[in-house]
This record gives sequence, C-alpha cells and structure tokens, in this order.
Amino acid sequence: MDMSIQNKERPIEKIEVPNVMKAAVMNKPFDIELQEVAVPKVLGEEVLVKVMAVGVCGSDIHYYEHGKIGRYVVEKPIILGHECAGIVAEVGENVTKVKVGDRVAIEPGITCGRCDYCKEGRYNLCPDVQFLATPPVDGAFVQYIKHREDFLFPIPDDLSFEEASLVEPFSVGIHAAKRSKLQPGSTVAIMGMGPVGLTAIAAVKAFGAAKIIVTDLEANRLEAAKKLGATHVINVLENDPNEEIFNITNGKGVDVAFETAGNPKALKSALQAVKRGGKMAIIGLPPQDEIGLNVPLIADNELDIFGVFRYSNTYPQGIEFLQSKSTDLKSLITDRYSLEETKAAMERARLNKKASLKVIVYPNGIIEE
Amino acid sequence: MDMSIQNKERPIEKIEVPNVMKAAVMNKPFDIELQEVAVPKVLGEEVLVKVMAVGVCGSDIHYYEHGKIGRYVVEKPIILGHECAGIVAEVGENVTKVKVGDRVAIEPGITCGRCDYCKEGRYNLCPDVQFLATPPVDGAFVQYIKHREDFLFPIPDDLSFEEASLVEPFSVGIHAAKRSKLQPGSTVAIMGMGPVGLTAIAAVKAFGAAKIIVTDLEANRLEAAKKLGATHVINVLENDPNEEIFNITNGKGVDVAFETAGNPKALKSALQAVKRGGKMAIIGLPPQDEIGLNVPLIADNELDIFGVFRYSNTYPQGIEFLQSKSTDLKSLITDRYSLEETKAAMERARLNKKASLKVIVYPNGIIEE
Amino acid sequence: MDMSIQNKERPIEKIEVPNVMKAAVMNKPFDIELQEVAVPKVLGEEVLVKVMAVGVCGSDIHYYEHGKIGRYVVEKPIILGHECAGIVAEVGENVTKVKVGDRVAIEPGITCGRCDYCKEGRYNLCPDVQFLATPPVDGAFVQYIKHREDFLFPIPDDLSFEEASLVEPFSVGIHAAKRSKLQPGSTVAIMGMGPVGLTAIAAVKAFGAAKIIVTDLEANRLEAAKKLGATHVINVLENDPNEEIFNITNGKGVDVAFETAGNPKALKSALQAVKRGGKMAIIGLPPQDEIGLNVPLIADNELDIFGVFRYSNTYPQGIEFLQSKSTDLKSLITDRYSLEETKAAMERARLNKKASLKVIVYPNGIIEE
Amino acid sequence: MDMSIQNKERPIEKIEVPNVMKAAVMNKPFDIELQEVAVPKVLGEEVLVKVMAVGVCGSDIHYYEHGKIGRYVVEKPIILGHECAGIVAEVGENVTKVKVGDRVAIEPGITCGRCDYCKEGRYNLCPDVQFLATPPVDGAFVQYIKHREDFLFPIPDDLSFEEASLVEPFSVGIHAAKRSKLQPGSTVAIMGMGPVGLTAIAAVKAFGAAKIIVTDLEANRLEAAKKLGATHVINVLENDPNEEIFNITNGKGVDVAFETAGNPKALKSALQAVKRGGKMAIIGLPPQDEIGLNVPLIADNELDIFGVFRYSNTYPQGIEFLQSKSTDLKSLITDRYSLEETKAAMERARLNKKASLKVIVYPNGIIEE
Repeated sequence: MDMSIQNKERPIEKIEVPNVMKAAVMNKPFDIELQEVAVPKVLGEEVLVKVMAVGVCGSDIHYYEHGKIGRYVVEKPIILGHECAGIVAEVGENVTKVKVGDRVAIEPGITCGRCDYCKEGRYNLCPDVQFLATPPVDGAFVQYIKHREDFLFPIPDDLSFEEASLVEPFSVGIHAAKRSKLQPGSTVAIMGMGPVGLTAIAAVKAFGAAKIIVTDLEANRLEAAKKLGATHVINVLENDPNEEIFNITNGKGVDVAFETAGNPKALKSALQAVKRGGKMAIIGLPPQDEIGLNVPLIADNELDIFGVFRYSNTYPQGIEFLQSKSTDLKSLITDRYSLEETKAAMERARLNKKASLKVIVYPNGIIEE
Repeated sequence: MDMSIQNKERPIEKIEVPNVMKAAVMNKPFDIELQEVAVPKVLGEEVLVKVMAVGVCGSDIHYYEHGKIGRYVVEKPIILGHECAGIVAEVGENVTKVKVGDRVAIEPGITCGRCDYCKEGRYNLCPDVQFLATPPVDGAFVQYIKHREDFLFPIPDDLSFEEASLVEPFSVGIHAAKRSKLQPGSTVAIMGMGPVGLTAIAAVKAFGAAKIIVTDLEANRLEAAKKLGATHVINVLENDPNEEIFNITNGKGVDVAFETAGNPKALKSALQAVKRGGKMAIIGLPPQDEIGLNVPLIADNELDIFGVFRYSNTYPQGIEFLQSKSTDLKSLITDRYSLEETKAAMERARLNKKASLKVIVYPNGIIEE
Repeated sequence: MDMSIQNKERPIEKIEVPNVMKAAVMNKPFDIELQEVAVPKVLGEEVLVKVMAVGVCGSDIHYYEHGKIGRYVVEKPIILGHECAGIVAEVGENVTKVKVGDRVAIEPGITCGRCDYCKEGRYNLCPDVQFLATPPVDGAFVQYIKHREDFLFPIPDDLSFEEASLVEPFSVGIHAAKRSKLQPGSTVAIMGMGPVGLTAIAAVKAFGAAKIIVTDLEANRLEAAKKLGATHVINVLENDPNEEIFNITNGKGVDVAFETAGNPKALKSALQAVKRGGKMAIIGLPPQDEIGLNVPLIADNELDIFGVFRYSNTYPQGIEFLQSKSTDLKSLITDRYSLEETKAAMERARLNKKASLKVIVYPNGIIEE
Repeated sequence: MDMSIQNKERPIEKIEVPNVMKAAVMNKPFDIELQEVAVPKVLGEEVLVKVMAVGVCGSDIHYYEHGKIGRYVVEKPIILGHECAGIVAEVGENVTKVKVGDRVAIEPGITCGRCDYCKEGRYNLCPDVQFLATPPVDGAFVQYIKHREDFLFPIPDDLSFEEASLVEPFSVGIHAAKRSKLQPGSTVAIMGMGPVGLTAIAAVKAFGAAKIIVTDLEANRLEAAKKLGATHVINVLENDPNEEIFNITNGKGVDVAFETAGNPKALKSALQAVKRGGKMAIIGLPPQDEIGLNVPLIADNELDIFGVFRYSNTYPQGIEFLQSKSTDLKSLITDRYSLEETKAAMERARLNKKASLKVIVYPNGIIEE
C-alpha cells in the first residue's frame, strides 16, 4: 500500500480554533442535549481535528436506546459518534505525520502499541484500546476532537468528508475480507444489508469477488446492494436463501459467507451456504448468547469460521479503494443533520430502517457534497 | 520432510502369496464371520500388501453396532478396519516407489488426484476418495489388501507394525496441529482422551506445545494421557475444566483447543477455554446436528474455529515423529487379537472403554512387539 | 471460485473426427514442415480436442532457434505450441467433466497427481509432468490433440479461442500474484513487457493493484501496457526506472516487483524498487547462471524473494477474469497464421519484436474474432 | 504462548539504587574506558534495570574495530552491549507489567508502536526503533539501564541471567524459523556456526526439525553444534558441503537453509542445498554489496528466499524454550569478565574465535552459574 496522500501542495493554513465548542451530550437514553464544552488542548502526538462529518452507527443507536452494549455501560453523560472525518486544526509538539489544514479520516480506536496483540499486528484485540463513543470514552458528535496522529489518515481533496467517515464501517468488511484471504474470482454471500453488510459488498468487490450474493428483508436495502455491486440479491421474505444460493452456485456453495446481521437464522443460512472447505465470517453480534450451529457440518466439510472484531490496518486500503472511484459509497448516505439536530438524526436512524441507510451529522455545518 | 526411508539395503524378497486368504466379513451389525476370499490381483500402480496389524477404530465399532455412520450405510457385507500396516507382497507393473519386502504404513484413503481439492493440496476433501472400510469400500481385516502405491509409506525396521498402524489416528492430530498453525511454546487444551485425543497429545508435543491440558472422565485415559506428554490432566467428573484452565493459564486461556470427544459440553468448554484471538479445532463428531455455541464470544474475541476432516500429507511426518523416539505410542496398545478373533476384538473395544485404549487385530498372526 | 461454466444448454454435437490430420513438425532448428499424422485415440480420462488457436510462446521460439532450453533438448522431431484452446471432439470412456462440443482452454502440463508436490497443491513442481511442447512431449501445432480431462477448462461462449489460449501466459502472472499474496490497493512494478509481463498487468489488476508501474525498452510494448491497465510506464532507454519509481512512490518503493524479462539489469532494478518488507517475484529466466544481487539489502530490508515456475490452479481464475470483461487481453493479439504458415508465424514472433505482441496459429483455419 | 512467568510470589524488594554508576564507554575504536556516569531516572512506562549479564555480540566487536556498521557510524563516545538481562530496580509511574525485584530479559530494540510496520506486527522494521548499542543509542555495558517496560520479559528463577542474555541471538533463529514456517520433521541446513548459527540450532530443534545439518570451518564450533543438537556437522575445509548434504538427504536437498555466516561461498552453498520448492533465509550480512546468485535455479525450483532482520515477538518463545530445559544454551558461554574488564572481553571475543564461543560481561560482578 502506498499511502502517499499527503496533501503536500496545500499551504499550511491557520485554522481559528475557539476555546469553547458545541457538543451533543447524551445524558441518559433518549436524552441528547447540546452543551458548550471546552475545546481540548493537544500535546505530544495529539492532534485536534475539526470534525466535519460523523456517521450514525448501529452501536450509537443501541447506546441511545439501551444505555449499554454487553459489558460496556453508559454510567455518566457521554458523547456518541465514532465514524468521522475532519480537518487538522492544531497539532501537538511531536506530531510529524499530519499538519494543520490536512483533510483526514479518523480511525476511532487508539491502541496501546505495547501489548502482545498490538505487537503481533492484531491491535484490534488490544485490551487497552480507547475507542470513541465506547464508555467511558467520548465520541465525535462535537466540533473539535483530540486524537493521536497515527490514527489519522489523510484523504485526497476530491473525497468528501462524509464518504471518508464511511471508511469506518467499510473497514469491517475489508478486515473480514483480509481474514478470509479472499481470492479474486471468488463467490461470496453476505447476509444482512445494514451499513456493514452494504459496505462489505464494496469491500469484497475491491478484493475481486466475481459473484456477490446478498440477503435482506428490506427491498430498499437490496436495491442499495445492487448499486454497490451485488450480483444477486435475495429477499428472504420471498425466497429461501439457501435454495437460491444452491442454484446460483450450481449446488457447490459459496467460497466465503459473511454474516453481518447478528441474526440466528441468517447465521444458520450462512453456514449452510458455504462450500466444502469454505469459510464463514461472523461479523454481526446476535442478542442471544447461544445459537445452535450445525457442528457435524463444520467438521465434515472442514469449514473455517472466524470472528471479526472491528479491524486493523484497513484505513489506507479503504481510502485507496474510495479514491480509485471504482468504489462509491455515496449512495449509502440518505440523511444529513446538523449537530444541533443530533437527537433527530438518532431518531431517524432508529425508526426509519425502510428508507434510511446512513445518517450523517455535520458538527460544523451541513455540506451537501 | 525428507522421507528417505526406503529400506534400501533389504534384498528384494520373494513373498509367497496364496490364491485365497482369510477375511473377517461383517454380514450385518454384530455379525462378523471369517471367510475365504480370493487374494486380489494388482495392476499398474497397485500394490498387494500383506496386512500385519490393524487397529480397531471408533468408526469400525460404530458400523459394527449401527450399520451406518451418517450418510454412509452398510448395504451389503463389508470388511472393516482401516488403521493398518504390513509388508509389500506384490507390485503392479508401474510401481516405482515401493518394492516387495518393504514394510509400510497404509494411508487408507485413495484420492482421485484430479479434482480441485486434490489439486489444491486438500485431498482429504476429495469427493471421489475410496476410503478403506467406508461403505461400499472393503477394509483391512484381511490377510492381503490391494492399495495404490502413493498411499504406502515405508517405515523403518525398528518401528513395529502395530505402531505404524497408529499413524492413522495420529494423523488426525497432526492435521489439526497443521490447520491451527501451532507454534512451539503454545498452550493447548485437548478435550476427550479417546485414541484421537490421546494421539493428538503426541502430535501437539511434536509441534512443540509447552503446556498440554487434557480432559476426560475416565481415570485410565487420563493416566495414558500423562504418559504421552499431557502436562495437566482434568477429570471433568471431579473438576470444572474451565476453572482449572483459567488457573493454569493465569486467566488468559489457551492458544488452541482441540475438541475430539464429539460432546456438546466438551465443545462449549473448549470454546470457553480459548484465549482472545485463539483457535479451536472441531474434530469429534457429535451425534446431534445442532449444538448451541456462544456466537458473540466468537465475534468479540475474534476466534478462529475450524473443522478437521481426516488429514492430508501427514504420514511422512507421523512416521518421522515415531522414528525420532521422542514420540512413543506403544503405551496405547492394550489388546491384541488374531484375525479369527476379530469379533472378539470389536466387542472388547466396544465394551471395555475403562481398560482398553487401542485394540489391534493381526491378520497374519499376533506379533507381540 | 465457482467454475460453473458447463455449457450445459449446448446439445451434444457429433464432431466428425478424421483418421489423419496435419501437424507442424519441427525436424530441427529453423526447419518446420507440415506433415500428415494419425489422429490419436482417446481412452479412460483422455479427451480429444480439436485445436482452434495456439499462441506462439517465447519458449517455442527458443526451441526453434536453439533446439534446447537448459536441460530440455530436442533430440527428435517435435511438435511445438502449448498455449491453446479448442473444442472437445471425442472423450474416453471415463470422462465426466467435459463432453463433445464443449469449448475449452487447455492447461498444457499433465501432472502425476501422486507425488508429494502434487499432493501438497504445488503440482507445478511435479517431477513427472508431461508438458506440451517440452521435449520429448509433442505440442499443439496440430489439428487434434489428446489431453487428460482434468486439465481442460470449459470457457463461456462469448470468450474467443484465441483469448482462451492466452490463459496460459496469463496464468504465470496470476500464479505470481498468488505467491506474493498480493493485496488490493498495492503498488506493483513489473519489469519487462513481453507477453508474460503484459498479461501480468491484467493479473495484478484483477488482484486489485492500485498502482501498476511497468518498464520496457520498446515503445509499442509500453503502449500495449497502458491499454492493459498500467498506471505508469517507464521506457528504460529514456529514464532511470528506480528514480522514476522512487518519485512515483514518494521514496517508499513498491509493495511487490515482478521481474519477467530475465534481464540482470531489470532484476537489480526490481530488487532496488521494493519497499522495506516488500516482495519480489523472479519470473524471467536469465541466460547466465549467476547474477550479482544486493544481498545485504535483502537481509536489512527483510525482503521476500520467490521464484515462479509455471503455475498451478490458475485456469479457473484466469477464465473468470476474462469472462468478467474487466480484463481484456484481445489487444495483445497482433498476428494470425494458419497451421500451414507455422514457420512464418515463428519467424514473425522471432524477428518482429517491435510490432508483434502475440502471434496466434489456427490449426483448423483462421478465425478473426 | 502463555507468558505467565510473573515471579508473583516474590515480595517486592527494595533495591538500593545509587546516583552514579560505572559504564564502559568506547571513546573511539579500540579505546574503551570505565567512567562514572549518572544513573538514569525513569518516568512513565520506563523501568530501571540493574544489568546482571551482557553478551558480547559480533556487532559490538565490529563497532569496536571499525567504528561503524554500514550506515550506522559512531560519531561520539558510545556504550556498547545489547544482549542483556538483569533485575528491575525502579519503575516509572505508569509501569504495570513488571515490579521491583523481577528478573528480566531485555529485548534491546524499543520501537515506536505507531508506524505501519509496528501496526502490522513487523516491528523489527520500525524506522524509529531505538536499538541498544546502535549509534547514537547507548547500550548495556553499564550497571543500570533504562528501558520501556514492554520490552522487558520476566524469566523464571532457575534461568540464569547469562542464559537470559542469550535470548537475544537466539531470537534471530526463532524469527528465521517463524519466517520459514518451519514444520516439525523438517530437514534444515545452517551455514556458519557463530553464536547466531549455534543458537539457531536450538531454535530449529524447538520447532521440531528432525535433521539439522550444519557447516563451519572451526572444529570447536562444530563440536558445540553437536552439543546443541546438530545431527550432521560438516567441516567445509574437509568436505564439500553440497556433496554431503546431497548424500544425507538422498539427493533431495533440505527443506530450509539458513545462511548465518555472511559468506558468499556459504550463501551459494545454501542456495544449492535447498530442495525444489524449498526455502532459504539470508541472516548473515556479507561485506560485499553484490553476490552472484543462481537466479535460474531460484525460478526453476520455485524457491522462497527471505531476509531476516533482527526479530519480533520472539522473547516469550525464547524464554519458554529455555525454561523447558530441552534447550540448553549454557554450553555456549566460554568466557566471563567484569565490567572493568570490558576491553579485555572485547579483545577475547575478537581474537580467539577458535576457543571462544560467547563472552559475557557482568556489570555488577561475575556470577558463575
């Protein structure tokens, strides 16, 4: 990967940074209010980023509704939002990789760089990660955010901030494709067409997947899937996905299946869809702790099943894919809100799964790109 | 691997091959009788092997009791037995790799060498495999057997036939170790101390596992495990295996777990025992089709779970390990029977799980080595 | 890979097969004559293919000029040509994968399927391979050729025979991309724009390479490279390739370099072009036995250098790439000859490197597709 | 890997740390003098280690003789020594992984944890590494040294400091074995029996190598090799190594060769020794920039050649191997010196290659273990 986007020609601008800023603070479930808070100071390797676009993620919605996800519990007011991009506004004294004025995508998890997982290249498993909008760490529904420079990735001038914010969900599919050692020419099934499933289409396409079979139960999501490159869409309300996949693959099954829905039925379907010697990625988190899986099938067909937890080393690839223009995630963005409207944005994402795909909040004013 | 065991110095003997031989034929479940059958003729790449030792496998017992395993149904009389070793007695006109008089271990599955799986090096998934003692293919409870030369592996003079017959179950653990890319110094848990679990101890030890934690509910099997190299044994009737593993690994979990018992409880226990980012091999076939697995754990801890179906390219390694004398499987052999006593051998293996580990049948006379 | 091209709908045609056919036999260097020879009979797994298109390869030219390549010496009259495609004309009694009338690409090396290399999935290293047009095995400048069914790959109706014949050189680049575990988004340098280098552009593009930097000293080849997807072309007569690559990659170097020219200077240049931790494939065969390489650089930068010898398991992918229409190798075909003109075809390929890219011989009549 | 050595039971001792200490400072080549310098203060993640044993490495000797290695030039007085172990004497306020009194091996390179190489798990390629005794970074010929906690590895009580210091050269062989994906049962050739070559014997043995063939021209080193587990030793002054290897492997060649001597002849020999499809690690740094290698052989035999630069993630494994007692590096230690005698230690290592294997300096008094 040659990450040579350095925005070199751009003169170092002076960005006026105020002392206080607006933040959308969630006091408790369903209660988000706009507050004035101090703009953070940056030191050492830290960078202050003027936040230009933030995607609303399913996990934001989940905290908004339930106040917790698994063992992560919101115990005091928190700022949500972790899919984000912006402009470098100030840099700490040791910063060398970005400069004021650079347009950047923000990888939201700051890892320790010291533990065994970090040292082995699986930093997504770092136990000391500080991940935006995961309690007790505040997120990006603010005007300025402090972040360590090595998790900022310059983006080219013609890539919009809102698209750059989508590198976050896109990264999950890229990570799954890398974990599965996906070969060009492969046949892939993706179960569930939420933002992770949809961006995973773009990911496996970038890895050269020849047939991309997707399932969902919402027509609008399947429509979006087609635009992103799905070669076969299956509405599970209308057709049996495994029958369809059987036919599409001449009875052989897919090389790799991604389960992104966190749905037991989709998981069983994905497992059944995989060819002998094939692979399945478990990406979606189901609500129940135990799901019945066909274990003899796993053994007999010598399947590989692997969990996918966030991602590592995906941002350069994600930006490269978006830059190449063969990948276009713009069609995913259906709704745009200002920071003042963060609660409305959350409600929109929460209630309108039929029409909404990705809702974006613009902390420094809506830009229609 | 340098498989240079070629028994070169041994002069080419003439082995007297009769026209008819004895075979232990299973007419139907629980009904095994000794019959006289024709000795097969060998052509091309085929080799006639005088069968010297045959291990009784759990699958033999299963056919003996139930007449089927999954989709494999015994529909006409069959000869069982597939863990075997012997002496080359005759060779087809194109045979170049072995010669009359060579002592050989027999890899029981003859694969096509033509399909995608074979060509990609995963010949254990070959759909056209002819596997000894899997209906309708006859097995090794006979005095002479015909086999393709490329699935015969010369053994050194000081390796007994009965040990060589154990390369078959040993191969399963070797294959699992290879599939898990087992690193020396690793901590491994093995659930279930049947012959596959027990020989898997020797396999992971040969791969350099530093801590080998095993579980079972039979004291004699745990005793045998210790002799084979288990560093920690857990009797699940007496202790909670996950508590023990938690303590042994200082709360971290094992690098890799092998489930060999086909037992839902052991499977759940294995999954729970694996460290974040770790791996689990599913080797044992449970009787039920669906087993509840902790799917969120798989995703959150980014586990790798992989099925293990038989093995490929393991015989040279297995023989090398046995030859090095650091691996010693002899202690597994508890009972020896002649071909005439095949039914008794089956009953012994079937009924005496407390005292018996591996029962061997000697089609050409018992050799106590 | 879902190789489901089965030409299913096509009715089984009867193809009239004569008893004798024309063959372009090379008696000795520079001496090719058309002879009448018997059409081979097919048995077992064998298939008779009516040869429709054969590409002229550099190795054909080399045998034509020198009568040998390394240890392979032409000791009696030989038929050259190994990049070929055609129509199934007759099938042996055990053939199940193709049927009369199927349009197929021919993978030219028939491997044993029995040796360690075959069993480990590296059948390109099989010591017993029978490779078309490698002495003493005859090749494809004939009207009908006998081949084992598992090395025939059905092609879709809208893929021309001449393009299908190019799957052979294309396979070398695909194999190199697989050996290098090429990641989408990578920067790749390819040294040498002969047919292997040119088709390697299409290969790395199919694997998602973002920047493809190529070198040669012939303007027409660099032109062809651009059409195939090279993003940067360097004429080494005009510019220093390493200076250029340094600039293109902002001083970092490429992720992977392929040396396809067999030229010491290009090899040194390729090694120098690779980033720290990067990879280099050695594909081209230089005439001299020893070439001075910067060994401290290999150690200090922890480079991976790997030889590429032919290919394995590439035909399904190659056909898939061609079928997807994002890959188009047609522009490579510059010259077309009948079987009668085989000698002229060889001379054209030999003498006209400025204007010719790939010369095709049509044993059953020229088809301009 | 379960790195659970935490010396837990040991009560937190108070270690008396003076304000000044002795250091062996090299002013210029051949000029080492003992000086009094300030004991460093530790902050944050830093730890002060009381240095108990330091091995003299070839690179120390090289700086001592030539004042530079490649692009690393000694421009001001420097303290050499980087193979070291000691006792934790003080800890910074953020230290959590070790405590005062812990016995530790010191991994000498402190990497940034921020760059692409670090994040991908190849931290040995980190461009910002601070490596002990590599100009301008001072090394371990001192009584107390400051180091970041994540590069300290607790050792068990019965592992001596001098053996723990050898984990450093041992790591190179472990890293090479990991890079080569060394399989148990393999045949390995190691060229050059300096400390890296000798400890590499122990490394490949820990990875299960069955045959370990080594070469050198000093009888004492070949003797040491036998003690460490070499199965075949070749004195290249007396025998042709490739002829010997040919015979030992029945003409097949070795699975993997390690070149550790940095000697062109040994390198060519290693390349020639590798079987078709085999691998070669380039570990030794030759003085000349270009070495003639048989490039057609690399391509035809599809070899994998890889550079080895230092190591990453090897200390836990190295300590585990030493702890298991199947690996014993004690026999390597031939000479022991106090810090005051550092110059004598360097001279011994420099001049006495016949009798000396590893020379150890004891900055806080010689311990004969």
